[in-house]
Amino acid sequence: MINILFAATAERWDEYRDLLHGAFAGVDYHLALDIPPQDVDYIVYAPNSEVQDFTPYTRLKAVLNLWAGVEKITGNPTLKVPLARMVDDQGLTQGMVEWVTGHTLRHHLGMDAHIVNPDKAWDAVAAPVASERPVTILGLGTLGQACAAALVSLGFPVTGWSRSQKTVPGVRCLSGPDGLQEALREAQIVILLLPDTPATDNTLNAETLQLPAKGAFVINPGRGPLIDDDALLAALDSGQIGHATLDVFRIEPLPADHPFWDHPKVTVTPHIAAETKASSAVHVIAENIRRSEAGEPLLHLVDRDAGY
Amino acid sequence: MINILFAATAERWDEYRDLLHGAFAGVDYHLALDIPPQDVDYIVYAPNSEVQDFTPYTRLKAVLNLWAGVEKITGNPTLKVPLARMVDDQGLTQGMVEWVTGHTLRHHLGMDAHIVNPDKAWDAVAAPVASERPVTILGLGTLGQACAAALVSLGFPVTGWSRSQKTVPGVRCLSGPDGLQEALREAQIVILLLPDTPATDNTLNAETLQLPAKGAFVINPGRGPLIDDDALLAALDSGQIGHATLDVFRIEPLPADHPFWDHPKVTVTPHIAAETKASSAVHVIAENIRRSEAGEPLLHLVDRDAGY
Repeated sequence: MINILFAATAERWDEYRDLLHGAFAGVDYHLALDIPPQDVDYIVYAPNSEVQDFTPYTRLKAVLNLWAGVEKITGNPTLKVPLARMVDDQGLTQGMVEWVTGHTLRHHLGMDAHIVNPDKAWDAVAAPVASERPVTILGLGTLGQACAAALVSLGFPVTGWSRSQKTVPGVRCLSGPDGLQEALREAQIVILLLPDTPATDNTLNAETLQLPAKGAFVINPGRGPLIDDDALLAALDSGQIGHATLDVFRIEPLPADHPFWDHPKVTVTPHIAAETKASSAVHVIAENIRRSEAGEPLLHLVDRDAGY
Repeated sequence: MINILFAATAERWDEYRDLLHGAFAGVDYHLALDIPPQDVDYIVYAPNSEVQDFTPYTRLKAVLNLWAGVEKITGNPTLKVPLARMVDDQGLTQGMVEWVTGHTLRHHLGMDAHIVNPDKAWDAVAAPVASERPVTILGLGTLGQACAAALVSLGFPVTGWSRSQKTVPGVRCLSGPDGLQEALREAQIVILLLPDTPATDNTLNAETLQLPAKGAFVINPGRGPLIDDDALLAALDSGQIGHATLDVFRIEPLPADHPFWDHPKVTVTPHIAAETKASSAVHVIAENIRRSEAGEPLLHLVDRDAGY
């Protein structure tokens, strides 16, 4: 019998309980919110849990974090056993594809004018077809490539840009500084999926924001610093950019006094485009318990000296 | 030289001009808004055009309608030449796939709470993945099958229902009255793409609206009479249905005093889900001119005695 303590909020328990039972099928285990510490083999853990002193967990074999972030636990001197962070590649990628495809179609179809339509306007103008709506994705990593594939399959002409040249089926791939200008030029929807590095800081700035087609849509599920906020606000006010849908920000949660909140051409989403999904995260946890029991190295093991 | 008169509004001319030139590439033609009537070979025509008397068009070979509807022209006694209506299968299907996929993702992702968020709520709860959101499509004709394929490829579990049993890859296909109950049961998103027949009238009614999962979304781009409006309003008020996005209505435009307009859980779109798309319609027109010049029968020729 493997005793597994679930140490996270009640909301997380509601979300994970049944899925964990499903993922543990075939294993002789006991999963609960309350197990005597000396009997606990594994802790499925959220860093905001009440469990902060691991000293009483004398037979503990590993702590399996529900979060990607571990900075609140790596310095805990009472934690002596291996710590794994959550890396939910499958859920992150799937979630990102859904969020990006959804918001791309939202802007393409002009949905907002129907969702909020106090004047009851019946303006029967259909959108152009996707093939007439050029989309540019900056960043062609795992997430960028998966989003590009989904948009290509819906019929959008997709241009992708990355620092080093890539080849992606059905996508016009560009690279380098000149390629960035060319990728942005006349794009009607610009999607940011670059990593946050010194080189990508303010990729969209006063100059590059002039390149897309007038009224283009900006969608940022990547990183906050990719955009110069003030330059974006100016481009929205001038009409050069038609709308921005932003999931990530330089400071999160986005401060209540940030002008993005009240700007009629900005949609704020609360960093949800790619979140750990319980349905796939439980399989990462189950796999790590299997590995630990089999004496194999854990997935996503944290190096607590390095802090990640 | 083939002289082609464009007889429609200025907005349509802006929309179609370049696309028509592209579709006529390689043909010796002259396309214009103004050609002496006795020189005109073909008229690309909208029934709301100023051209209503065809008598002066003495060498006219055919009228190529830009609209699917021809009821305003079939009775015109001055029209003696063949009339073709617009059947834009490619544009209709593509548009429907985009609209259905977009609104399915909108409801799946809970976008409305971010699009309209006056309280600046930062509620970082991500949607479940598509694989946890069962979708049911009623109607598996060309449009239903195309929408099913797009949603399957995004990861949604799709159930399809049709009067007679069909087989669609990746889709759980049901049929018949018992199959309808089974198809609706526990669906979280219900999409209506049935034809308008006596048998499909009020397919969603007070009884069948109880079958989907509590809070399910209804999306109707099919036909207005598929839904019992009062039953839907009651199901929205009770919370059994979470939201309805409707593109078609028993009376269109939807009358200003219809309760759908003001209901907070209803989104009205103005019959735009599947409209003729200029980009594909121009190829239907070019093909009909080619056929006429080659002495072949026109596509979508109207039987003016029958009226369609």
